[in-house]
Amino acid sequence: MTTNPLLPAQGSGLDQDLDDDKFHEECGVFGIYGHEDAAAHTALGLHALQHRGQEAAGIVAFDGAHFNAHRDLGHVGDIFSSSEVIARLAGHAAIGHNRYSTTGETALRNVQPLFADLSCGGFTLAHNGNLTNARELRRVLVEKGAIFQSTMDTEVIIHLIATSEAASLIDRMTSALRQIEGAYSLVAMTENCLIAVRDPMGVRPLVLGRLGTANVVASETCALDIIGAEFVRDVEAGEMIVLDESGVHSLRPFPPAPRRPCIFEYIYFARPDSLMEGTSIYEARKRIGAELAQESAVAAEVVIPVPDSGVPAAIGYAEQSQIPFELGIIRNHYVGRTFIEPAQQIRNLGVRLKHNANRNSIEGKRVILVDDSIVRGTTSIKIVEMVRAAGAQEVHMRIAAPPTAHSCFYGIDTPEKQELLASSMDVAAMAGHIGVDSLAFITIDGLYRAMGESGRDADAPKYCDACFTGEYPIRLTDFEHSEAPAQLSLLAERA
Amino acid sequence: MTTNPLLPAQGSGLDQDLDDDKFHEECGVFGIYGHEDAAAHTALGLHALQHRGQEAAGIVAFDGAHFNAHRDLGHVGDIFSSSEVIARLAGHAAIGHNRYSTTGETALRNVQPLFADLSCGGFTLAHNGNLTNARELRRVLVEKGAIFQSTMDTEVIIHLIATSEAASLIDRMTSALRQIEGAYSLVAMTENCLIAVRDPMGVRPLVLGRLGTANVVASETCALDIIGAEFVRDVEAGEMIVLDESGVHSLRPFPPAPRRPCIFEYIYFARPDSLMEGTSIYEARKRIGAELAQESAVAAEVVIPVPDSGVPAAIGYAEQSQIPFELGIIRNHYVGRTFIEPAQQIRNLGVRLKHNANRNSIEGKRVILVDDSIVRGTTSIKIVEMVRAAGAQEVHMRIAAPPTAHSCFYGIDTPEKQELLASSMDVAAMAGHIGVDSLAFITIDGLYRAMGESGRDADAPKYCDACFTGEYPIRLTDFEHSEAPAQLSLLAERA
Amino acid sequence: MTTNPLLPAQGSGLDQDLDDDKFHEECGVFGIYGHEDAAAHTALGLHALQHRGQEAAGIVAFDGAHFNAHRDLGHVGDIFSSSEVIARLAGHAAIGHNRYSTTGETALRNVQPLFADLSCGGFTLAHNGNLTNARELRRVLVEKGAIFQSTMDTEVIIHLIATSEAASLIDRMTSALRQIEGAYSLVAMTENCLIAVRDPMGVRPLVLGRLGTANVVASETCALDIIGAEFVRDVEAGEMIVLDESGVHSLRPFPPAPRRPCIFEYIYFARPDSLMEGTSIYEARKRIGAELAQESAVAAEVVIPVPDSGVPAAIGYAEQSQIPFELGIIRNHYVGRTFIEPAQQIRNLGVRLKHNANRNSIEGKRVILVDDSIVRGTTSIKIVEMVRAAGAQEVHMRIAAPPTAHSCFYGIDTPEKQELLASSMDVAAMAGHIGVDSLAFITIDGLYRAMGESGRDADAPKYCDACFTGEYPIRLTDFEHSEAPAQLSLLAERA
Amino acid sequence: MTTNPLLPAQGSGLDQDLDDDKFHEECGVFGIYGHEDAAAHTALGLHALQHRGQEAAGIVAFDGAHFNAHRDLGHVGDIFSSSEVIARLAGHAAIGHNRYSTTGETALRNVQPLFADLSCGGFTLAHNGNLTNARELRRVLVEKGAIFQSTMDTEVIIHLIATSEAASLIDRMTSALRQIEGAYSLVAMTENCLIAVRDPMGVRPLVLGRLGTANVVASETCALDIIGAEFVRDVEAGEMIVLDESGVHSLRPFPPAPRRPCIFEYIYFARPDSLMEGTSIYEARKRIGAELAQESAVAAEVVIPVPDSGVPAAIGYAEQSQIPFELGIIRNHYVGRTFIEPAQQIRNLGVRLKHNANRNSIEGKRVILVDDSIVRGTTSIKIVEMVRAAGAQEVHMRIAAPPTAHSCFYGIDTPEKQELLASSMDVAAMAGHIGVDSLAFITIDGLYRAMGESGRDADAPKYCDACFTGEYPIRLTDFEHSEAPAQLSLLAERA
Repeated sequence: MTTNPLLPAQGSGLDQDLDDDKFHEECGVFGIYGHEDAAAHTALGLHALQHRGQEAAGIVAFDGAHFNAHRDLGHVGDIFSSSEVIARLAGHAAIGHNRYSTTGETALRNVQPLFADLSCGGFTLAHNGNLTNARELRRVLVEKGAIFQSTMDTEVIIHLIATSEAASLIDRMTSALRQIEGAYSLVAMTENCLIAVRDPMGVRPLVLGRLGTANVVASETCALDIIGAEFVRDVEAGEMIVLDESGVHSLRPFPPAPRRPCIFEYIYFARPDSLMEGTSIYEARKRIGAELAQESAVAAEVVIPVPDSGVPAAIGYAEQSQIPFELGIIRNHYVGRTFIEPAQQIRNLGVRLKHNANRNSIEGKRVILVDDSIVRGTTSIKIVEMVRAAGAQEVHMRIAAPPTAHSCFYGIDTPEKQELLASSMDVAAMAGHIGVDSLAFITIDGLYRAMGESGRDADAPKYCDACFTGEYPIRLTDFEHSEAPAQLSLLAERA
Repeated sequence: MTTNPLLPAQGSGLDQDLDDDKFHEECGVFGIYGHEDAAAHTALGLHALQHRGQEAAGIVAFDGAHFNAHRDLGHVGDIFSSSEVIARLAGHAAIGHNRYSTTGETALRNVQPLFADLSCGGFTLAHNGNLTNARELRRVLVEKGAIFQSTMDTEVIIHLIATSEAASLIDRMTSALRQIEGAYSLVAMTENCLIAVRDPMGVRPLVLGRLGTANVVASETCALDIIGAEFVRDVEAGEMIVLDESGVHSLRPFPPAPRRPCIFEYIYFARPDSLMEGTSIYEARKRIGAELAQESAVAAEVVIPVPDSGVPAAIGYAEQSQIPFELGIIRNHYVGRTFIEPAQQIRNLGVRLKHNANRNSIEGKRVILVDDSIVRGTTSIKIVEMVRAAGAQEVHMRIAAPPTAHSCFYGIDTPEKQELLASSMDVAAMAGHIGVDSLAFITIDGLYRAMGESGRDADAPKYCDACFTGEYPIRLTDFEHSEAPAQLSLLAERA
Repeated sequence: MTTNPLLPAQGSGLDQDLDDDKFHEECGVFGIYGHEDAAAHTALGLHALQHRGQEAAGIVAFDGAHFNAHRDLGHVGDIFSSSEVIARLAGHAAIGHNRYSTTGETALRNVQPLFADLSCGGFTLAHNGNLTNARELRRVLVEKGAIFQSTMDTEVIIHLIATSEAASLIDRMTSALRQIEGAYSLVAMTENCLIAVRDPMGVRPLVLGRLGTANVVASETCALDIIGAEFVRDVEAGEMIVLDESGVHSLRPFPPAPRRPCIFEYIYFARPDSLMEGTSIYEARKRIGAELAQESAVAAEVVIPVPDSGVPAAIGYAEQSQIPFELGIIRNHYVGRTFIEPAQQIRNLGVRLKHNANRNSIEGKRVILVDDSIVRGTTSIKIVEMVRAAGAQEVHMRIAAPPTAHSCFYGIDTPEKQELLASSMDVAAMAGHIGVDSLAFITIDGLYRAMGESGRDADAPKYCDACFTGEYPIRLTDFEHSEAPAQLSLLAERA
Repeated sequence: MTTNPLLPAQGSGLDQDLDDDKFHEECGVFGIYGHEDAAAHTALGLHALQHRGQEAAGIVAFDGAHFNAHRDLGHVGDIFSSSEVIARLAGHAAIGHNRYSTTGETALRNVQPLFADLSCGGFTLAHNGNLTNARELRRVLVEKGAIFQSTMDTEVIIHLIATSEAASLIDRMTSALRQIEGAYSLVAMTENCLIAVRDPMGVRPLVLGRLGTANVVASETCALDIIGAEFVRDVEAGEMIVLDESGVHSLRPFPPAPRRPCIFEYIYFARPDSLMEGTSIYEARKRIGAELAQESAVAAEVVIPVPDSGVPAAIGYAEQSQIPFELGIIRNHYVGRTFIEPAQQIRNLGVRLKHNANRNSIEGKRVILVDDSIVRGTTSIKIVEMVRAAGAQEVHMRIAAPPTAHSCFYGIDTPEKQELLASSMDVAAMAGHIGVDSLAFITIDGLYRAMGESGRDADAPKYCDACFTGEYPIRLTDFEHSEAPAQLSLLAERA
């Protein structure tokens, strides 16, 4: 889901996390059917998916009579920390959602799962991804008298279902899905079943698991691991899975389409202990690092990861290059979000609040810094400064992704194109900008090789790589007209 | 507005307030058009109306571009205490709402004013009263695909407006109002105007005032006093007032109907410093006390009010009877809602946590206790015990209302009929139940005499007195069928 | 107890309470020995004494092994609202304290009861009053190596006990008491007994009660009433009461001194339902009102109390003068401390946030306003304005105390002498200042007559009346030298 | 400092952190003299030292007139997050303290720095370490009339200073230091200077730095790095450093003693980016890993660290053994302290809430797990289970410390001796207990070799290694008598 980009963002303060200058996954979803502790397991699953969205979380459980909901802003471990909350979420089936949002309102009305009392019964829905024709659909629905509760694209789906004239809920939902465009992994629940859908091209991930007699769906396999569930398989692109008392049913509501999963999941978004489409994320990152070492070798005494996301690629780089791997940047585990730099004079401390150079590993050495990506480049500049201040003789940066020159419209929070460093500078200019002796990105073909291909097939690429190539596989209806988009809601209210 | 009576009430704990065993007003409304500090004035107006609803409050202001909202559970003085909150509520027009609810969910989704982005623009609505055909209308709307956000009857009005095919907002609203039945004072706001409506019989109160060039509407005149506004007149039964840049416009969307304002406002709900339909509430209560003294005189040394609502009637009773008025029950002003009786053994302290007998005024005397009404009788028993324990020789209770034997369906929170003491006992039985030497209620004719009539005109009573007489002037569509009403929402979620 | 007057006061904000311009009692104390729910009863007792101090409260209970304490800032009903807190305060004996402070730090280190691990065992102490030689004693103790935890005068007593070379705790305490000067009602507890002491002149109140086999001490009888305890007698001036397993023991540690209880307790501080030295506070106030009516009669149509403290005197005035008593000023019960006036333009609302004139009782009438005292006169001005705005033809103010022209050094929070209106203006000037047609205070002899004397005996006054007369019955050692007093602590820390 | 071990510990709940089963440093200290933003820098320094104590933190700054303090329970980043708090801590000099405590009360009275108004002026003190004769000294002081505010050994020092008859504060402090026994790094502040002291054997660390013209002391160099200060030197064992307007002064208040810094700082406590006595902690840990690889080699496919503290030793082990290093256990960075396992059935999830095995790096392999120490062994069991569940063919555990068989009395929080796994089992039994195919600890001589010695010199060991060897270099006065120690305070009160 995504939120209203026209409302002012709430300031993120002085958070010095190196992760700030990354692309961000916008959501994680989870669902379980047929377990008496459905909500408790959903809370654990969402916790394992916390990296996919830290702003808000919600769970809706169905107990045979009511849809018991709890949704709030904050981290899963805080929202669902009381046994009283879990006790209220009674039910044998539950779905849950983690939300990340930088631009829209941080408001309770935008916390998922969404719920509606339809004429055919209760219905609740959670969504990872982004619809690219939601604004147009919304406009038409409002004309007909629909009242929207939120500014989320996800709500369009519910109104399409509510106003559908099809008989069954599954038919209503199929009708709705055929009208929407975009990338989505959906988890929905009715009084009878739990429904999981992956968009026709399978851009966003979704996996199926089993815990005893219960069936589980989740954005990543790490959410299966935490509850001790067995991984069954990836949900296929364009597949609709229905979980009910009689088991797992697979439907195909869409015409066939080429499979194009998001390649950035492998580079940064997914957890290293997850499997996607049969591939270990950790192993993929090591292979990218190794490929990078082959593509752009440089003489050095030490390979240092930018923590924490650069570590697997750095290990791969070090193994391939036979240059020692060292933790040259130490992370302070105790930094919360609340620390305010207390004085003007010390603003320039930059990343030192969360990280410190390990001088012993750096001083007098030629250093290879390995990071997963460069977005705006702001933290790269600080990291390089810190490494140089610790006495590095040379600093060579190696990036485990191609330059990110294009925005994502499929559920990833990316800066406007003009803020992307790679959209306005070539590699040499970027090297100068961030102050390194050399800079290299993995090539797009190198990236595909690390993924087990012989290179990128320009006619039929195996992944969605629009952020690198600008080739968008799904139509961008809402963005086709140059005019400024209409404002989604006139209501301005904080959580 | 009212909420879903089918969901379990949240326990009110051990609140010992004497007001607990009263009928309760369910809401207060306020609106102002044409003042640069619209929201600040609305906060003050809601504060003056706090006695009409203490559970939640909300304000929506319109600044020419956005509808700026802030709604929360709690008291007005807490919700709107920060200058930052008021600053966010920019605008030259604003409406506000206080909510009281005992039965429904205490959830943010039920805090008013409601807001919707309609195809014709933003629309926000606040409601004091209760619709008696809301369930039926809701059922039909959901069939057509409407998605309700709340369990409030008020929301029906918004959906009727959203799906109306009339051209102007005023026409759409008129169309909606003609479909609803019940008691209501509405305050609504669009991008162009503020609209106030009183139901055809004028059951719930609504007044019009003026502050400089700004126009104001409010449930009671005390909300005009607090902002220094001048009282203009009562909004008439069945009148729709439109406030906009060109001033005050009066419309008549309904066919004429007999005027039947709620008589209980004069007995208990309204603040003593308010005027209603030209009558001072304080003075009305004194006259009721005097009438009561004439109807049921008894020899005694002292007249003691049950604080605080019984004071004006007790003053009237004392003046008429020439028996001294004394504060025989002292109120502790420092009791908040949070005190928990700390030990099982002292549960029987009862009302002493909030009140204490003033032994000096009571010991050895024949005491007349004056209270405004008896609902379940639970606190009356404790008060009488306390007065007897302080040494009263005799205790005579006089009630400034007739016996309340019938539930209200027009916006007042009343217990189920069977919980009303007067529905199952005659006066003698009640006297025994609460342990007094004598008990008398004012007669219905005496009550009308105190209001300036010659008595109740059975053919055309001047007030709604259904709680005393069982004669309901407005149709009770949702309650006509004996079957249990359908559940409004399957969603169960706490604030 | 009192706190460091040299540290800056925390602003009290825009609290519009009429009580703001009053003298304030600085503390209430409570103790119970021999009851298994000692702490729960102490919490209730402190709640009944909340009017004597609203800033902080604490309880220490002794369970035979530990002194279980809970002390915090806030109201009793909030601090002791959880059953978990009460459960931790196990013990058969407990003491408690309410604190009021305007000038000193609002810090946890100044919340009583104080506790110390003495060589002879645990010792805890609570204090209502003020020591007038505490600074001098503190200076000497610090010279000897004592380390003070607080800035409270009360702590001096504990250090005098700790460093005493007497054998028994009672002897050590007697030795300490003989060194201190001032007004005090103390409640202390050791591992063996509970000790209550009233200063030699009995300035501050203290009463003894009984609840079954348990013995109780409290500042006022209303604290006995709330727990259902029986009033036994006032603790006598200069008496030390020891409560232990063998019962109640009375000691006389001081040479005899004239009895001089504070007369202001009768005028304003004490609760109207309390008895002091055999006199009902409510009755005393009515007699003062009646005396005032005789001393300064004036033609009028209505007697209106300034709520709430002026009510009993107004009833007495009305009865004596045969002029009707009316609630001409209505109090809004819902105002908390947190309301911030939201806009500059409405600052002049003044007291309307908490009170409103009842126009119906005022318009066109000659009004007698009865208040208990005038301190700075700031709220009197606003009240008079409000009454005039409501249409009063004449406003006559009658004050149930003589002019308060002198500060109190015996445990009452009073403004600096120069801030007291009566210290710089005569009655005529004050009348002009507050804008009334006439103003009269009761005479000091009239006040004594209302208390049952024939007038004030200038040679041997029966009460401490220093705030009216400037005759201070107890030496003011710390204030004898004109030099600025030394700062009590260099530590500045907020709660 | 340490707290009262006799009071019951507050339950730590279900915190699944692998760090739970470690020894814990009990405090960190920081001080700065001569900087206008002294408190802000101290907050940063404490933040860098957060790993040395997470329960509470405090700062006292001196502004020339007042000692401005702020002390609270929680993390540094939360306690000092508001600019308002920092603004109140005005001053050119400040000291700060982080506290860790598992056994004592978690009470505000035990939050350092301590402060006292002495006859010679204000004095504030912070302490890392533990006094071994504090109970005996306290007993004597209380006999003389001293009143202790806390249960901390640190407070003994202040009372010894307060009651000293020496003339200057430095002489008083020297007199106090000569009476105490134990391990301590102290930072104190008077109105004139900042004083830092390291115990005669230098057990606990303390370093001196410089930031422009300001001088700084801190427990570790990482606290210098965060503020951009330059490292000057370690404070020497038995040295007293005085920082004042005229600069840095070194005093020697003690007779010479052998230097015995704590060796566990190198193994686990200190941050890897700190330098101690000229040695890089990170490098020391890598050397320990390498030494361990030589001492106890085993055939395997992968070396996996137990995160995060085992990483440097694992890197050293992998380099030495030429076996690949992999992140086989992935940490979830989003776990706060508040997550409660929501259901009984999933209790056995164990460490999976915070960590997950990276199956891809483990399945089918012989795994060497490297951890820094084993205390109770509880988390080792869970880690091994998790690694086996991920498909490890063999699991060999290697520990970068000798078996910890003895409690620490010098400022480290260690379990009772009987809870230490190594105190009741030999290595073979431990291997069986935690379920590994082989288990090896580094030898004590190997550890000394990694530290650059030729082995441990039994006659004059260079480090305090009592937790491994049971040889306690400083007298344990309070623990010499077998009788149960006296309870420090009878007061039981929570924060």
